[in-house]
Amino acid sequence: MIGVDWGTSSFRAWRMDNQGGIKDRVAAPRGILTVEAGGFPAVLRSLIGPWLDDGENIILICGMAGSRQGWQEAPYLPCPADAAALAGALLPVEFEGRRCFLVPGLSARDPQGVPEVMRGEETKILGLLDRLPPGRSLVLSPGSHSKWALVQDGTVLSFLTQFTGEAYAVLSTHTILARTLDATAPQDWAAFDDGLARARQPGGLLHHLFGLRTRNLFGELTEAAAGSYLSGLLLGHEVASALPEGMTRVFLVGDGAMMARYARALASLGVATTEVPEEAAAAGLWRIGQSLPAL
Amino acid sequence: MIGVDWGTSSFRAWRMDNQGGIKDRVAAPRGILTVEAGGFPAVLRSLIGPWLDDGENIILICGMAGSRQGWQEAPYLPCPADAAALAGALLPVEFEGRRCFLVPGLSARDPQGVPEVMRGEETKILGLLDRLPPGRSLVLSPGSHSKWALVQDGTVLSFLTQFTGEAYAVLSTHTILARTLDATAPQDWAAFDDGLARARQPGGLLHHLFGLRTRNLFGELTEAAAGSYLSGLLLGHEVASALPEGMTRVFLVGDGAMMARYARALASLGVATTEVPEEAAAAGLWRIGQSLPAL
Repeated sequence: MIGVDWGTSSFRAWRMDNQGGIKDRVAAPRGILTVEAGGFPAVLRSLIGPWLDDGENIILICGMAGSRQGWQEAPYLPCPADAAALAGALLPVEFEGRRCFLVPGLSARDPQGVPEVMRGEETKILGLLDRLPPGRSLVLSPGSHSKWALVQDGTVLSFLTQFTGEAYAVLSTHTILARTLDATAPQDWAAFDDGLARARQPGGLLHHLFGLRTRNLFGELTEAAAGSYLSGLLLGHEVASALPEGMTRVFLVGDGAMMARYARALASLGVATTEVPEEAAAAGLWRIGQSLPAL
Repeated sequence: MIGVDWGTSSFRAWRMDNQGGIKDRVAAPRGILTVEAGGFPAVLRSLIGPWLDDGENIILICGMAGSRQGWQEAPYLPCPADAAALAGALLPVEFEGRRCFLVPGLSARDPQGVPEVMRGEETKILGLLDRLPPGRSLVLSPGSHSKWALVQDGTVLSFLTQFTGEAYAVLSTHTILARTLDATAPQDWAAFDDGLARARQPGGLLHHLFGLRTRNLFGELTEAAAGSYLSGLLLGHEVASALPEGMTRVFLVGDGAMMARYARALASLGVATTEVPEEAAAAGLWRIGQSLPAL
């Protein structure tokens, strides 16, 4: 089978054998924002044509390709949900007469009843089920909107989202803080830790943000350190708010620089982390594929 | 004497009699961002020339004109500070041989030692001293960066800043939340109250922000209501963080739509507010002028 993680800005695909092993992979900067309405079949053909010509007939696609702005909208499936439930809610799309499906996202309600959605992360979470211990686990998927999911025995019970990544992006580029923040500077872990420590103090995030400006004015925060400080400050606020009482381990799924930052932010609260290697989405797609009804 | 509040984006001046009564006023969109280096004397002459020709010889200027980007930098005066201390720290600037001074801003440290600054608000605060009861009062000046100042017996003891106004501006225009927020919609107090109530729930501001998107997706928040909801959410977080324990009244100084919003946010916590009418800056400048040494 073929698994595709088709996101907002990137496209990744894997060709898998019958044991879920990855035989081949493709990655391209062809996120859904680069695809015109009606253009999804042609783009998919252009990116994985050789696999199709080689006889692959099952294609599972997760991510924003299943959103309103994507190929077709696959409605959110309410939690709790497991791989079988997702497989049962796959949305077939027309693609060269093959068995091609969009994986739906998940929805939930937070404890106060406010809606929650994810699209793409549910598949990564399924991909790491084999690594989770029995009982309840907390899985964190960093990103522009990070997702904190409670998983038990193969089922996503609930989850919540934090707006941290996007908040960092706009604060560091479109506010007065940008004037004294060198976005090209390398990670400064001491400054990151200062930001984490600041998040544990009273005053609230909106007060703490202004401190970036004043600490710069008073020579206490360099432009090179400001980005790391802001990152630590925001992640510190996020983990303090999002971590459920009594949770001592978090499974981090994803890749890139954010993994180490979240691990450090969680460690500062005494929480252990397990980082799950890349291509969790591929494993999740394969798991959903196992639940597909035979034709 | 002449008092001037010369801010980033606007210029306001008052001609006052010997009792501080306002005889005449000028307002112009000539904030310091519109003035070239070295151009401040000429712009001031162009805006208040008739008063000068009429013999006014004392000009006090507060606000960003005293910043590094302004006419000349008037260094921050550390708190605690009163009108006499500000008068003693006035920075004389050359202007047609007249007695022309820049009012310095104030600096402070928050309880954790992080620096604080204000420039312009200190003068408004001085302008409402006559309205404050004996003992300690809390004065709130809304704005892009709102200032919460503790004042006692004419002295600004300390203050802290909240980044709320600027956070609202970037979140409502430069994030995914902007797509489902009609910035031209009128104030919706029910949505504002919903945002205030949300701020009192667990989860943290970064989680609550994502709820704007999901509540829209689920048909629970219209685009017309989203701006008011976001405003209530941010102000709710601000007042919960900034309000000192046991404070039952806040004096609001300023003008514009934010005054009513802060009053409502504070009322939701059982805190009474007193709104101080406009032109507090004029009264503050006059008070500082009273402390000027005679020539």
